[in-house]
Amino acid sequence: MPPLWIVNLIGSFAAVCTTIAFVPQLVRVYRRKTARDISFSMFLVFSVGELLWFLYGIFIHSLPVILANAVTLALAVSILVLKLRYDRL
Amino acid sequence: MPPLWIVNLIGSFAAVCTTIAFVPQLVRVYRRKTARDISFSMFLVFSVGELLWFLYGIFIHSLPVILANAVTLALAVSILVLKLRYDRL
Repeated sequence: MPPLWIVNLIGSFAAVCTTIAFVPQLVRVYRRKTARDISFSMFLVFSVGELLWFLYGIFIHSLPVILANAVTLALAVSILVLKLRYDRL
Repeated sequence: MPPLWIVNLIGSFAAVCTTIAFVPQLVRVYRRKTARDISFSMFLVFSVGELLWFLYGIFIHSLPVILANAVTLALAVSILVLKLRYDRL
């Protein structure tokens, strides 16, 4: 097993990746004004999950869990809202 | 603050949501044979993040972290592979 600081670094980098990953998807949908191939169910269930992670972070008093999931929740909900808007066009 | 078992239940349900969310996206891409609106960068960065979460789970000996992220990694990589295949058609 690697030293603890390496393990924590891996965990932190993991959190950054699974959070910022949603930025290019949001940008793509916004630029192309289309989101037909994106699953509404995915982003709905994912957003519910992120909301629950956020609450979980509050209950266990974990600032990294709160922050990472607040950002991911905002990004996922934004993609969901854009999909709803563009699918009607 | 709610009792610990409620907090753990919220955390577990959060993990289930953010994992199974990828199933309807995989099904949608597979059925419609198109993934143009899906961001390659999103699923690439997300998969790297899931791989790191998986390694982190191994290092901290957390079976829930290992299992949840192994499943999510498999789903995200599958979507990525299908996108690469269908975008060429």
